[in-house]
Amino acid sequence: MLFDQIADKWSMMVLAVLHAGPLRFNAIRRLLEGVTQKALTQCLRRLERNGLVSRRVITTSPVAVEYEITPLGRTLQDPLKALYAWTYAKMPEVEQARQAFDQRNGKG
Amino acid sequence: MLFDQIADKWSMMVLAVLHAGPLRFNAIRRLLEGVTQKALTQCLRRLERNGLVSRRVITTSPVAVEYEITPLGRTLQDPLKALYAWTYAKMPEVEQARQAFDQRNGKG
Repeated sequence: MLFDQIADKWSMMVLAVLHAGPLRFNAIRRLLEGVTQKALTQCLRRLERNGLVSRRVITTSPVAVEYEITPLGRTLQDPLKALYAWTYAKMPEVEQARQAFDQRNGKG
Repeated sequence: MLFDQIADKWSMMVLAVLHAGPLRFNAIRRLLEGVTQKALTQCLRRLERNGLVSRRVITTSPVAVEYEITPLGRTLQDPLKALYAWTYAKMPEVEQARQAFDQRNGKG
């Protein structure tokens, strides 16, 4: 199922940081706080396989690998932006709900 | 991070099936092919804690538990619909990308 492979936190964050332009692996890693090397490698490979990101080896010394969002990947940005916007707008309501839930369940 | 808790396949599917009206646990389970009892229980609990779904015990015999989307949960439906629409519209392009990737990587 495609949905599975797109609707995960790291994939969405990778697409967000590539919006402005291509980035090298280590630059992406620095921007995604908390991601492990392994998780980011797998995530980028999945994005590449799904045609959302392209990978380019730059023959500098040492060799670098650069990632760029594809035209197909760009078409995902509007739906993702709407989801981000919702998250930011509704966070206070969600926080309230969480506190109420935790109090009802004896964790408050 | 809220995003994490919303952007997962089962949560999105639960919100989608509750769109038409409240449903009991077993009805939701039947509609979500492949979900385990445990995964669905955890998913519903997370949705309830985040204020997106409400849970109601119906004192029939045997007791039933019904889940309903909340007004806050309803505000998520538009952004989610946009993401679903993207998935359906772009699936052929994604499939092509996958085949090309697998061929490049010797799995074709």
